[in-house]
Amino acid sequence: MNLPANKKNISIVCFSGDFDKMIAAFTIATGAAATNREVTMFFTFWGLNALKKKKGRVAMGNSIMARAFNFLMGGLNNLPLSRLNFFGASSKLMTGMMKKHNVASLPELVDAAHALGIRIVACEMAMHILELEQSDLIEEVQDVVGVATFLNDSEESHIIFI
Amino acid sequence: MNLPANKKNISIVCFSGDFDKMIAAFTIATGAAATNREVTMFFTFWGLNALKKKKGRVAMGNSIMARAFNFLMGGLNNLPLSRLNFFGASSKLMTGMMKKHNVASLPELVDAAHALGIRIVACEMAMHILELEQSDLIEEVQDVVGVATFLNDSEESHIIFI
Amino acid sequence: MNLPANKKNISIVCFSGDFDKMIAAFTIATGAAATNREVTMFFTFWGLNALKKKKGRVAMGNSIMARAFNFLMGGLNNLPLSRLNFFGASSKLMTGMMKKHNVASLPELVDAAHALGIRIVACEMAMHILELEQSDLIEEVQDVVGVATFLNDSEESHIIFI
Repeated sequence: MNLPANKKNISIVCFSGDFDKMIAAFTIATGAAATNREVTMFFTFWGLNALKKKKGRVAMGNSIMARAFNFLMGGLNNLPLSRLNFFGASSKLMTGMMKKHNVASLPELVDAAHALGIRIVACEMAMHILELEQSDLIEEVQDVVGVATFLNDSEESHIIFI
Repeated sequence: MNLPANKKNISIVCFSGDFDKMIAAFTIATGAAATNREVTMFFTFWGLNALKKKKGRVAMGNSIMARAFNFLMGGLNNLPLSRLNFFGASSKLMTGMMKKHNVASLPELVDAAHALGIRIVACEMAMHILELEQSDLIEEVQDVVGVATFLNDSEESHIIFI
Repeated sequence: MNLPANKKNISIVCFSGDFDKMIAAFTIATGAAATNREVTMFFTFWGLNALKKKKGRVAMGNSIMARAFNFLMGGLNNLPLSRLNFFGASSKLMTGMMKKHNVASLPELVDAAHALGIRIVACEMAMHILELEQSDLIEEVQDVVGVATFLNDSEESHIIFI
């Protein structure tokens, strides 16, 4: 492993809330942070499911539309696999396979991200559309920011859209 | 919001024609352009659906295969949600939620992209496979280019694949 | 086509094993390599399907879980389309359309990638979870590496997640 002198930071747009893609996002993020990179994870749309305080299917927001949509979207415990989902069975199967091989689970990866100082922010526009407040999200979320701010903060980073 | 001195441009490969991902692509693109970045959107495969002049399901191309495929792909009015699609109901629900909160709709975002000087180009190879001509696409499309040209033009840009 | 003086290399994370996204990944990779860029393709999770020696549905690994999962995942001959899959019919339809227009097929693109000197590596963690050995993969795979190594090797490259 060659350690480059000036490491580029990593900014990940976590758009897709699929279980497997979330694992990928947090694995890249923690791997980058563990090797001394500054990492920002910008959660938007389906990705916000991983950050909701209530981890099951809960109707959130004020309007009927938002409540129905948030209920259907679910939370950290309902993230589907991007393929072969079988109504959620595969996420459990994959979690079992990861556990068997001592690979960190998704909640463990979220904890590790926080411990490694990864900056976790939520997308302002998506929060607005889904009628979510920062108080609806886990306390590891540091800020709610707009796209332009995220891009400015990522000027010198790799930007990865997952 | 820290405004960096030398802003990096943004090149977005719009591969996925999902409604929610198109909203994400145009939101990033217009947010970047509004803060003085040069932005190129390179539409390929499913992404071309957002650029077809005829916005419904229309059989385009010469061969039966291409005509069937283009019909099934649909156009701007048939973009599915990447999840929870419910035969198109969710795209309408999401459009309703966006409208309620004064967030720009997809056709409005396409207009805004054009007005902000975002360069919209279509992928040569995908056009060829799908038997589409530039005249089949909306006039906001400025060029049909190959992958190598796109990469060369994106040398100094962030490349984001959506 | 403007040829820039200092070309940036390309690193592609091939996460999604969808047929259409694999075509996109290999098209970008070979296009970049053909114009004198160094290209690395890092295959992980579903993407590993494209590299399995046995191209059909085969139960691989030691545990029942891994064997079931690998069987369901399939191989190069079972890659689904990301949309309109129709139980695999669409991948065949798309292959037909590509052939008709003299566009390289997926196995041809894998060969071209190898011939152009593209570095093909597999993700250590995904191999571990899926209980795959390097000997289960085609011989074009040059190495099995971790995420941190991949990121270090991609310091000066565009990173594209597909």
